[in-house]
Amino acid sequence: MAKLEKLVIASNNQGKLREINTLLAPLSIEVIPQSDFNAGEIDEPHGTFVENALAKARHACRCSGLPALADDSGICVSALNGSPGVNSARYAGEPKSDERNNLKLIAALKNNSDRRAYYYCVIVLIRHADDPQPIIVDGSWYGEIIDQPRGEGGFGYDPHFFVSEFGKTSAELSAEQKNIISHRGQALTHLVEILRAGKF
Amino acid sequence: MAKLEKLVIASNNQGKLREINTLLAPLSIEVIPQSDFNAGEIDEPHGTFVENALAKARHACRCSGLPALADDSGICVSALNGSPGVNSARYAGEPKSDERNNLKLIAALKNNSDRRAYYYCVIVLIRHADDPQPIIVDGSWYGEIIDQPRGEGGFGYDPHFFVSEFGKTSAELSAEQKNIISHRGQALTHLVEILRAGKF
Repeated sequence: MAKLEKLVIASNNQGKLREINTLLAPLSIEVIPQSDFNAGEIDEPHGTFVENALAKARHACRCSGLPALADDSGICVSALNGSPGVNSARYAGEPKSDERNNLKLIAALKNNSDRRAYYYCVIVLIRHADDPQPIIVDGSWYGEIIDQPRGEGGFGYDPHFFVSEFGKTSAELSAEQKNIISHRGQALTHLVEILRAGKF
Repeated sequence: MAKLEKLVIASNNQGKLREINTLLAPLSIEVIPQSDFNAGEIDEPHGTFVENALAKARHACRCSGLPALADDSGICVSALNGSPGVNSARYAGEPKSDERNNLKLIAALKNNSDRRAYYYCVIVLIRHADDPQPIIVDGSWYGEIIDQPRGEGGFGYDPHFFVSEFGKTSAELSAEQKNIISHRGQALTHLVEILRAGKF
């Protein structure tokens, strides 16, 4: 199969773009954000992470004519039966707001001692918009939700996502640490293995 | 997470049912065909294997109220740009016919020296019809297409799918051999690893 030399990333989220760029850098793949092709964000209407990621990747493919990588991710909280899940980005409604999302999450867990949660990420990579065989990888990152935000790094729910093995929230970890162990880092590591093996 | 004790298989294909049953047997999961719930086959309208598998799994879930496993698979031929691919089962139109599909494939490759092909399989497992996080595994099995059918085992394109490491077609392999190396075998092996690790 032809070597992958260039791809578009179906995201305008600067935090995600940074993480993805860092993790794909060793592969000498030129990574172009979809904003370079004036591709706006699309709806995420599906009930699964993988179908939302596919929809985003196809949109970026069509706008750019390039192979496209898209992720869909969210945080799944045990005491809330997996919510906010696929609705994590818009948990507190439109327009998307990390601040309001986090306030809503903490309110929903008030007086609840079960704080278990995990971040989940699916990444898909497609050669073209009608690719019948997308590469699909995923990752899960386990932690717990704390009421008081800590840290300035990351994005989304990171200031409230406490990782006991580090004694820190995701927002307190360095980008290097987070890239190794996070849900997105795990998924991208799998992707890099697949690309290195020439399976795309 | 609760141990998986029972699941429905979203297929009425006896060949697939046998393969899946054999490979899941060590896990002590009771595997029930969807025909036990009078669930008929549904369309496979999507352009990706994974979306077709999801559609089939959801249908089986809704009919049975059980977690559901579905596969979607096909054969992708290099000289035909990956066809029949997602259309493998209905390559020669309705009603589905292995015999007519194989005749069409051999005709399409007439005088073509490039015989490379691979079988591809995606398996999804969902807890319920709205499961946001299906388990998704896949497998690819490389071989080449030969004009003269050989062997009585297997199904689909097996009599024309020659595996050079065995010097046999897929239809000449024993069920045990095929279960270890086939596209479906590989995917199910990944699934068993995931289930053993308690990740469902």
